[in-house]
Amino acid sequence: MTIYKAPVEDVTFLLNDVFQIDKYNNLPGFSDATADVRAAIFDEAAKFAEQVLHPLNHSGDLEGCTRHDDGRVTTPKGFKEAFKQFADGGWIGLAAPQEYGGQGLPASLSETVSEFMSSANMAFGMYGGLTQGAMAALLVHGTPEQKKTFVPNMVTGKWTGTMNLTEPQCGTDLGLMRTKAVKQADGTYKITGTKIFISGGEQDLTENIVHLVLARIEGAPAGIKGVSLFVVPKMKLNADGSLSGEPNGVSCGSIEHKMGIHGNSTCVLNFDNAVGTLVGLENKGMEAMFVMMNEARLGVGVQGLSQSEVAYQNAAAYAKDRLQGRSISGVKAPDKPADPIIVHPDVRRTLMSIRAFNEGARALVVWTSLKGDVAHRSDDPKEREAADDHMGLLTPVIKGVLTDQGFANAVAAQQMFGGHGFIVETGVEQFVRDARITMLYEGANGIQALDLVGRKLGRAGGRAITTFFNEVAAFSKENAANEAMKPYIAPLSAAVKDLQQATMWLMQNAMAKPDNAGAASTDYMHLFGLVAIGYMWARMAKVAQDKLAESGEQPYLKSKLVTGRFFMERMLPETALRLSRIKSGADSMMELSAEAF
Amino acid sequence: MTIYKAPVEDVTFLLNDVFQIDKYNNLPGFSDATADVRAAIFDEAAKFAEQVLHPLNHSGDLEGCTRHDDGRVTTPKGFKEAFKQFADGGWIGLAAPQEYGGQGLPASLSETVSEFMSSANMAFGMYGGLTQGAMAALLVHGTPEQKKTFVPNMVTGKWTGTMNLTEPQCGTDLGLMRTKAVKQADGTYKITGTKIFISGGEQDLTENIVHLVLARIEGAPAGIKGVSLFVVPKMKLNADGSLSGEPNGVSCGSIEHKMGIHGNSTCVLNFDNAVGTLVGLENKGMEAMFVMMNEARLGVGVQGLSQSEVAYQNAAAYAKDRLQGRSISGVKAPDKPADPIIVHPDVRRTLMSIRAFNEGARALVVWTSLKGDVAHRSDDPKEREAADDHMGLLTPVIKGVLTDQGFANAVAAQQMFGGHGFIVETGVEQFVRDARITMLYEGANGIQALDLVGRKLGRAGGRAITTFFNEVAAFSKENAANEAMKPYIAPLSAAVKDLQQATMWLMQNAMAKPDNAGAASTDYMHLFGLVAIGYMWARMAKVAQDKLAESGEQPYLKSKLVTGRFFMERMLPETALRLSRIKSGADSMMELSAEAF
Repeated sequence: MTIYKAPVEDVTFLLNDVFQIDKYNNLPGFSDATADVRAAIFDEAAKFAEQVLHPLNHSGDLEGCTRHDDGRVTTPKGFKEAFKQFADGGWIGLAAPQEYGGQGLPASLSETVSEFMSSANMAFGMYGGLTQGAMAALLVHGTPEQKKTFVPNMVTGKWTGTMNLTEPQCGTDLGLMRTKAVKQADGTYKITGTKIFISGGEQDLTENIVHLVLARIEGAPAGIKGVSLFVVPKMKLNADGSLSGEPNGVSCGSIEHKMGIHGNSTCVLNFDNAVGTLVGLENKGMEAMFVMMNEARLGVGVQGLSQSEVAYQNAAAYAKDRLQGRSISGVKAPDKPADPIIVHPDVRRTLMSIRAFNEGARALVVWTSLKGDVAHRSDDPKEREAADDHMGLLTPVIKGVLTDQGFANAVAAQQMFGGHGFIVETGVEQFVRDARITMLYEGANGIQALDLVGRKLGRAGGRAITTFFNEVAAFSKENAANEAMKPYIAPLSAAVKDLQQATMWLMQNAMAKPDNAGAASTDYMHLFGLVAIGYMWARMAKVAQDKLAESGEQPYLKSKLVTGRFFMERMLPETALRLSRIKSGADSMMELSAEAF
Repeated sequence: MTIYKAPVEDVTFLLNDVFQIDKYNNLPGFSDATADVRAAIFDEAAKFAEQVLHPLNHSGDLEGCTRHDDGRVTTPKGFKEAFKQFADGGWIGLAAPQEYGGQGLPASLSETVSEFMSSANMAFGMYGGLTQGAMAALLVHGTPEQKKTFVPNMVTGKWTGTMNLTEPQCGTDLGLMRTKAVKQADGTYKITGTKIFISGGEQDLTENIVHLVLARIEGAPAGIKGVSLFVVPKMKLNADGSLSGEPNGVSCGSIEHKMGIHGNSTCVLNFDNAVGTLVGLENKGMEAMFVMMNEARLGVGVQGLSQSEVAYQNAAAYAKDRLQGRSISGVKAPDKPADPIIVHPDVRRTLMSIRAFNEGARALVVWTSLKGDVAHRSDDPKEREAADDHMGLLTPVIKGVLTDQGFANAVAAQQMFGGHGFIVETGVEQFVRDARITMLYEGANGIQALDLVGRKLGRAGGRAITTFFNEVAAFSKENAANEAMKPYIAPLSAAVKDLQQATMWLMQNAMAKPDNAGAASTDYMHLFGLVAIGYMWARMAKVAQDKLAESGEQPYLKSKLVTGRFFMERMLPETALRLSRIKSGADSMMELSAEAF
């Protein structure tokens, strides 16, 4: 049996103290989200995650989803009832506009809540998460009619949403897509083709599913420039938007057999003259889809964190409980046949590493999702631009680093259990298998790294990274004279220098030889992630010190300072290794002929 | 469908050229293993692994083992026939003494062959691997009677062997063991208790199973000093050693549900007054068991390598076949809709990293298993001692590093497949799940690190590590003036310095504060592994250069040099990070109270 407790104290510290969400009260929806409201939301979300979703996690993994001969899909026992509670609780539309029935609260709150849900039951959380992504795309690119028809039903969880991109021959390279759309006299399109890896593609949770589908309109240009986005409901609608009762030529051909997330029905979907309407402009499908993908990429980063967190909690509990051997510094539990394994430094090292990553990563998510709120809601174009820069730069980092490391942390947590970690009933191997997908979907992490290095870094003359460097430099300068902050500022400054050198190296070496950028990309992404999380730790340490000075002994704040120091001493120095790899360039990896592999 | 091709060319290069096995012709059994004989063995082994075992790997994973109501266990379809072929081929007794029916060939050959078998089908390979370990313990500690009764039947694969250590309350800390042995008037013992995680604990491959069982004799001292080793056959024997037809109170209570190695029947075994005989001395069970464990630990390291190798081969094949996107340095396959993904530097980086590790790790295994042969077969006590030192020092490194990195490599190889890597039918996720156990069993890797730092390093005044440093220094000096060797020698020397500093730091800081040793242990083990593999690469580079100078263009040797350079430039510099972590000491990880976790 696994455990899970939502990190309410931690998110409260981040939102209230570190990032001072109350300062954003000028943004729409923020003044409704008072400290009391936030506390109530977190308590409710925690309760739902811990008491309803978490108990369905392991059973959902074991049972999986079932496709019946008629193409219907049944989700695991309990999912349907839980989804109704989830929808009725208003969790899907927490940050959706009030005009469509949402609560209009900050997206940063919604993102925080999604960590809880995903830790408790990642496969379940995906049904709602993809619905939010599909809503976001419709809200930005949909016609008023499309918004009115679909969004209110998605906000309430009456209908869910999906993303249909991948086909057997194309995932990363969507220009190879074959699904076709044929325009009808009434302006609608008939969509035909096969999509694979469609999360929540068919299910028994809701009466309808809103499929967003990329397809190629007859006669469209070849490649990515001929791809358009369509909205295709599973069940046809009447003119007034109500269900007609008639199915719409979309069927689940099979459920994929996967390494993990068995509770989510990942489908092969066959579109056979399914009727859809165009979202956005013809042949501009990628633009519309990118809204959804960016939203989704941040969400996937949170999934990586979520599995790292729940794995950590279980490993910590086991380490305090499991008795094996004695401490090398002297017996700690003389009344017991052996000491609990948490006395051993190597066990501590593992737990501290995971924890230091999780808390820093969580801060990065809260910081970035607040920027997302600014980008979407501020009425100051300058502020919006800066926030959008930040989102563009940090989204691939969060997606790539939080999932690579989130998975590695789940593995490290599993390791604490010894052989028991390999046993299904222990429950931790599921965290590893579930976390594994986060490195692969929504753009495999290699693609995130290329997006960062190839697109985001140079955009607008490097405006985003310059702003980032300036902000960190200003913070470091501000705290340079503060003796208590030295253990945080000095390592941060060294790490920033590594990132600056790496950035410079890329500018000098990638233009002339693009392979140098590709060769550096993954290391650069992780170098960036380390520095960004290091900066988060410095900021958290500052706030923790200030609060301790104000209010004296507080175990939570003391732990923050120790954990931050651990990150600075043990983890942040990895930046030097990443830099040295980057500087070694592409030669030794490109020299062999393909046949030599 | 996965592929597998045994690396015959690579092991031949290692044995013939790098480690010059022919120089050991004075050792018993070596003169029989001429170059021709070795080539024939490798060809046969490759054929069997590729054509018989590999096709059963995926199906064995899907089907798993079945326990029937009467306690019988069925292995997956095809395993029984394959095991008969495996046994008849003489693979189990390849290195076993001729007086017991073995072929008496070098254990280094047997270890090499076991990589092939394990790459092809790790779950299957375990049945034979554990039999070899059990034989080793009986050959060292068994009575003449026990050897005569059991070993010949294990050599021929008529019977298999198992290791019974773990109980629910004890794995790492065997002193907590409860299984008891009661001495009978005839000198035998009746064994009663429950053992868990017993690989091959029950199966339908052979007519009998030789269980080696740790238990506590009535009245024995508490803790590890009261543990004895017993041999307990599944079926009782007549006085002449033939099967009596009567079962011996050992039964399979259940098959564990595991994350991977489904083709191996991992059992809960219940011993209920099962009759056994003592192996070795009373209360000295751990000594006897250690023979088996050391053998097994080297074997588990090879398993880690084996999964890394097969995962690499599949990722490389996919990378050459899968078309997505275009090379950033210009279109490479203009006649195709996209370039194969092997054109992308980030894909190359991944493949080169895995490959550079695998080839270096394989060299380390061959080098060490040759030392094992010297340790067991030389008639020069000095030589035996030195070889034994080497084995003691390198066994935990090989077990810990080859499995940690072997698993990480399987994950990296899976990543090459994008979303398809998560799909069961693709087959690579099995390599990840199978590789995962290698980090956990035969002593979780944290234990290997403690064994290295706490036991092996300081033994005999640090004799083993001193010899290691001297050997590497001599090699570096010998090649210092050789310009072509500079790209290998310079990074190796830097890495050795890091290892020396780390060793010094341990000597200075671990005595006064033992937690510093525990805090450093895992990083030290990986630092050691990097240096050892770096040394292997330098030696391989030297031989490759010499052979190229002799015989001109040879693609295999050219690839070696490029791959070695990649290791030196990209991977070996990790030693600096490991050193910096070690030097940060135990403080920041031990400061929090247990309750804070």
